[in-house]
Amino acid sequence: MTRRDKGSSPLVPRVAASRLSRYLRHLEELEARGESTTSSQQLGGALGVTAAQVRKDLGYFGQFGFPGLGYKIPNLIPDIRRVLGMERTWNVALVGIGNLGNALLRYKGFQAHGFRLVALFDASPRIVGRTIEGMKVHAVEQAARVVEEKGVELAILAVPASAAQEVASRLVAAGIRGIYNFAPVNLSLPEHVAYVSIDLSLELEQLAFLVSHRNRELAHRSSQETAGSGP
Amino acid sequence: MTRRDKGSSPLVPRVAASRLSRYLRHLEELEARGESTTSSQQLGGALGVTAAQVRKDLGYFGQFGFPGLGYKIPNLIPDIRRVLGMERTWNVALVGIGNLGNALLRYKGFQAHGFRLVALFDASPRIVGRTIEGMKVHAVEQAARVVEEKGVELAILAVPASAAQEVASRLVAAGIRGIYNFAPVNLSLPEHVAYVSIDLSLELEQLAFLVSHRNRELAHRSSQETAGSGP
Repeated sequence: MTRRDKGSSPLVPRVAASRLSRYLRHLEELEARGESTTSSQQLGGALGVTAAQVRKDLGYFGQFGFPGLGYKIPNLIPDIRRVLGMERTWNVALVGIGNLGNALLRYKGFQAHGFRLVALFDASPRIVGRTIEGMKVHAVEQAARVVEEKGVELAILAVPASAAQEVASRLVAAGIRGIYNFAPVNLSLPEHVAYVSIDLSLELEQLAFLVSHRNRELAHRSSQETAGSGP
Repeated sequence: MTRRDKGSSPLVPRVAASRLSRYLRHLEELEARGESTTSSQQLGGALGVTAAQVRKDLGYFGQFGFPGLGYKIPNLIPDIRRVLGMERTWNVALVGIGNLGNALLRYKGFQAHGFRLVALFDASPRIVGRTIEGMKVHAVEQAARVVEEKGVELAILAVPASAAQEVASRLVAAGIRGIYNFAPVNLSLPEHVAYVSIDLSLELEQLAFLVSHRNRELAHRSSQETAGSGP
């Protein structure tokens, strides 16, 4: 019972959107190497998914490939960008210029993918008013004015966990539409505000957990296999 | 049929391990504020999970709380650290000193959580041999020697996607036990090597996708609700 109107923008499930971002990265690499076509097999192989999954994901927005030719990269890239909302530039504010904020401030990867850092915020009087990388650091209390003046839509939140909710609420009140949260805390936000969370240390801690449990798991598995023969 | 030997280390599922990391962060904050007890309600509320889930997660390693008193934070913190493999320090190498690598190099969050950056690697002859933050940058070809000398167990991989698999394989051959991969590519690794992936730009792109689709989704939802009454 699914009807698709060719003229309208397609609805893409969140899990597919994550893969589309990864296809896009790979296609940009292929393009940079001078390639002009690719196949579902090749895309899937590079990203660890099946060719059928690739065809389904690209089918969401009417990219079906050509038999024997595959997909034309110069068509596919702008199509994926459009679906992801990346056919345009997004103005981003960085909130919290501590250790992590400083690192993110110097990271050029966001800019390379269509994000433009246009405003900095911090809570500390020692930092507010300073100019870093050509941008003035504002107090969070000035968010409403700065967000409007600079046309900020997304905020990267690199503040301590204890301050995150209060700062996030203030950003929402200031008109921010999406928050990229690096603080290790769950934010409570209104439904119209989108929200993605990441915790760099937590992920590294998970790696340490996996390493320290790997041998134990393997040992446990073999002990379970023999447990059935016990009394 | 589950038996638990009180003397042995508990087996904790991966999804629970991720929550344990988050409990630990929150407990460290509470401790820094001078608190000495907490409850499953409080821990769950702070992290957006139910009290029952908290009790189950902490029950994996025999922490059951005291009625009316809750959990003793000074006991709970070292218990969680031990379960996560964080009762010790991990020696980490950073591989790839480009934009992202430089940012991660200056990020102090890893160190604050028991990780010690002890070695730097890069592929570029312009960077190899330089000293950054007191550490010499080595060529990836020297990984086997440096990993052994410095007792490196984990590697943060901040290299371009096109180089990631080759570099990862070299690190595995050098004896690395876990890889924290920032390159937007699926790595193929032997079973004994643990592996966690993160892509900072991709996550921000997902946020842009969510923002640009939020209104459309709401509109679509209401159009679907009326679609059933059509011819």
